[in-house]
Amino acid sequence: MVGYNNHLSQHPYDHYDSAMKKTASGFSPLICLDRKAGKPLYSQVYDAFRAAIVGGNLRAGQRIPSTRALSSELRISRIPVLNAYAQLLAEGYFKSRVGSGTFVSSSLPDLLTPSQDYSARSTRVLAMPRPIARRSSLIPRYERPAWVSGHGAFSLSQPAVDAFPFHVWSKLVARYWRDLHRSALQYGDPMGFKELREAIGAYLRAARSVRCEWQQIMIVSGSQQALDISARVLLDAGSPVWIEEPGYWLTRHMLTAAGCRLVPVPVDNDGLDVAVGVERCSKARAAYVAPSHQYPLGATMSASRRLQLLEWAQSAASWIVEDDYDSEYRYDSKPIASLQGLDHSSRVIYIGTFSKVLFPSLRVGYIVIPSDLVEHFVAIRHAMDVSPSHLYQVVFADFINEGHFSRHIRRMRLVYGGRREVLVNCIRKELDSVLQVHGAEAGLHLTVTLPKGYRDRVISARAARQNLWLWPLSPSYLGTTPRQGLILGFGGATVAEIPDAVRRLRAVLTSDRAR
Amino acid sequence: MVGYNNHLSQHPYDHYDSAMKKTASGFSPLICLDRKAGKPLYSQVYDAFRAAIVGGNLRAGQRIPSTRALSSELRISRIPVLNAYAQLLAEGYFKSRVGSGTFVSSSLPDLLTPSQDYSARSTRVLAMPRPIARRSSLIPRYERPAWVSGHGAFSLSQPAVDAFPFHVWSKLVARYWRDLHRSALQYGDPMGFKELREAIGAYLRAARSVRCEWQQIMIVSGSQQALDISARVLLDAGSPVWIEEPGYWLTRHMLTAAGCRLVPVPVDNDGLDVAVGVERCSKARAAYVAPSHQYPLGATMSASRRLQLLEWAQSAASWIVEDDYDSEYRYDSKPIASLQGLDHSSRVIYIGTFSKVLFPSLRVGYIVIPSDLVEHFVAIRHAMDVSPSHLYQVVFADFINEGHFSRHIRRMRLVYGGRREVLVNCIRKELDSVLQVHGAEAGLHLTVTLPKGYRDRVISARAARQNLWLWPLSPSYLGTTPRQGLILGFGGATVAEIPDAVRRLRAVLTSDRAR
Repeated sequence: MVGYNNHLSQHPYDHYDSAMKKTASGFSPLICLDRKAGKPLYSQVYDAFRAAIVGGNLRAGQRIPSTRALSSELRISRIPVLNAYAQLLAEGYFKSRVGSGTFVSSSLPDLLTPSQDYSARSTRVLAMPRPIARRSSLIPRYERPAWVSGHGAFSLSQPAVDAFPFHVWSKLVARYWRDLHRSALQYGDPMGFKELREAIGAYLRAARSVRCEWQQIMIVSGSQQALDISARVLLDAGSPVWIEEPGYWLTRHMLTAAGCRLVPVPVDNDGLDVAVGVERCSKARAAYVAPSHQYPLGATMSASRRLQLLEWAQSAASWIVEDDYDSEYRYDSKPIASLQGLDHSSRVIYIGTFSKVLFPSLRVGYIVIPSDLVEHFVAIRHAMDVSPSHLYQVVFADFINEGHFSRHIRRMRLVYGGRREVLVNCIRKELDSVLQVHGAEAGLHLTVTLPKGYRDRVISARAARQNLWLWPLSPSYLGTTPRQGLILGFGGATVAEIPDAVRRLRAVLTSDRAR
Repeated sequence: MVGYNNHLSQHPYDHYDSAMKKTASGFSPLICLDRKAGKPLYSQVYDAFRAAIVGGNLRAGQRIPSTRALSSELRISRIPVLNAYAQLLAEGYFKSRVGSGTFVSSSLPDLLTPSQDYSARSTRVLAMPRPIARRSSLIPRYERPAWVSGHGAFSLSQPAVDAFPFHVWSKLVARYWRDLHRSALQYGDPMGFKELREAIGAYLRAARSVRCEWQQIMIVSGSQQALDISARVLLDAGSPVWIEEPGYWLTRHMLTAAGCRLVPVPVDNDGLDVAVGVERCSKARAAYVAPSHQYPLGATMSASRRLQLLEWAQSAASWIVEDDYDSEYRYDSKPIASLQGLDHSSRVIYIGTFSKVLFPSLRVGYIVIPSDLVEHFVAIRHAMDVSPSHLYQVVFADFINEGHFSRHIRRMRLVYGGRREVLVNCIRKELDSVLQVHGAEAGLHLTVTLPKGYRDRVISARAARQNLWLWPLSPSYLGTTPRQGLILGFGGATVAEIPDAVRRLRAVLTSDRAR
């Protein structure tokens, strides 16, 4: 959040004030008074504050409750509290400012700095074994590599947030609070808000040919939670699961955390190669696929592969999890119906998110669940996090039902179509000899593969130093012979910005050190 | 949401309008045009709509895109779209209203009703086995028993939402949207928003003597997600885990879903009986406890038990998950420091929520993580749901930092203290011979136990028919000899409402059919 502290900028205590904004105001430390003790009450209050400050439980600059609030809380008269505060002020533990209240002083002689204390605790920790779950030791460390640290060209998963109709959205948010009903503040249905589920159902039936009733739709915090819930309902530790090779790394992490056995199945221009999957592991419990716009290579699964996959799932009694993470936007080709809509044996769990269509921090996605599995999904979801947050569910339902959503998608399809065209043309013009483009027919990103000798991680790291944000392709492979390439988002840079960004990318690629 | 459709109430098309509000507006069905086909374009558009309507992908009353929007989307001239719409109107598939647009007609002769189609699909489903994860077959069905279906006396986990300063909160929400920075719309840190983590750290250090730095604090969607994440990081399938007997049923469900072996350890007036735990399973991987205000019996764990538990955890290399779900409010007794604050070997994972202090649909809670485990918690959280929702994190940080939070807690302590006192007095006056009160020193609920012969589920179900919402005690037991009792929330009924509610409870209890 930026800007709302500006009204303080002319204030003489500016520094002090903004420091205060950073710490919580007016919390009382734990004070246990013993009325029968020989020690007077004011001295007990003094001791409690002093111990809290020296022990690091109250920190420099932190606001202290008023004497009135504290004495009422402790159920004693104000006199001992006033006396204790006076002594703490006199000794320099407290600092007082007229009109602002009382604070812990910023410079204290005998104050143990909390970080020393903290690290002292940390070293003692290792005296005994500290066992964690096997699955959580298998999952790779969370890292933020250089190429995710900025926004703009060619940042991945970044929609054109500047084109989002915030005036509409914030009006709906304001209306939510104005018309708030008490029940909106209580725990909700673990499946989500009914009106939103109905609205999403109508959307998915029309736009994606998903066959569903609203009772099958669960609102989740995004496609990642959807993937996670599906794994917890369907997969046991050790269950073999087909994943796309190359594929989405977070699907892999999630399945690793679920303790599954990953079976990489190669992807070609027709999508997942079902025959190879059957060869490698015909009895996989599930297949995780993105048939509309495979990540990262962008293939759309062909009709024959779709039917093959559905047949396999039915004959092997397996599940298909269809991750339709960005299929709202298709450019050249005809629209593609969902795999779920072709499924006559309810083997497909259909997953989507609005992170790309609206904005990522929204945290709203959905699962379309085969009807016989709904009870299992609800039970697991309830045990995981009870119910989804209410506000944005209501606001988003209004946004859809009042027509803003379909208007926004139509508008953004033109915006992104334009950006994609400029990007593809610029790559052809500037880098045709070096880069081969894949999967530009849909979504918000395309992938380019590199000729022999280039190392994509090196390029991504170098590009990040030039404020160009490209994901390397090779980490999308589980196997040991990954292709080298780059994944370019085109949601976050305008038509005017793209040509220059491509020229800067060329400079990075043609530098000697790219190989 | 209530009230904002009121402006329609005088409209002659009221019924039609409110039906429209329920379905999404203006989504196009999937239309694949083949320009080389013999069939004219208008006829292809007609066929697509007819098929979508007959197949249930477009439903009665659903809005159709304008001819302008559709022709632009299909990149054809408006003429064939106009012709197709004219025919669909003439045949009664569409209905048009001047100024409102075009809709799928509400009465269609050859329309397969979607529910028929849906159930037809459902029966075919069972032809092949449908294997799900073992853990998801073990977890009990999600149910909403009669006693959770209303709000008011003595609804559990219901704070006094009418006393929440909504004018402040909604101003902060409005300010968030007004001053919004682009970065606020992107994915956030999987640990949560830094300013909120700092503010919660300051609060926990002061008010709960938790020893922590903000880097150890993870923002989650509530204490349930906190419990879940802790289990996924720390526990393997089959890991033995101590749980309180009786205890919180959702902790049990979560641990069942994690595949753990539950070891019930009895609770007495001093909290968890550590010696019995050691006897039953000395090598448990973890203990899940609520030492401040045990659920449901309300004991506060004594100092000696706390030290025993910490010693056990250190010597057995086990973890303690401290669920401090409602310790903001203590009434009679002295404040109790957290167990985490006594721990010198970083064996305690400290968990809390703001569902009770603010409102449940907020969905904001936290985990204080031992510093060497932070990397594992982050990796699992990122694989589970990427990052928490942004808006309420910022708003809540502002709410704390501007002093509203500590003021609200102080105020609510008085409100709840008053309600608790009235409830305890009324029970003593009206039902002293029948009910024994437990755990009224803290939190937002107390528990009463029943004399021999009473069956708590029967009473709860009967009370629900009188608009009294009481949880039965017996489902809190894992073992086969549960005590019979009732759990009474006092957050959701005012001082004026409580006496009558207790009298009505007496009527339920003294009826013959209660036993």
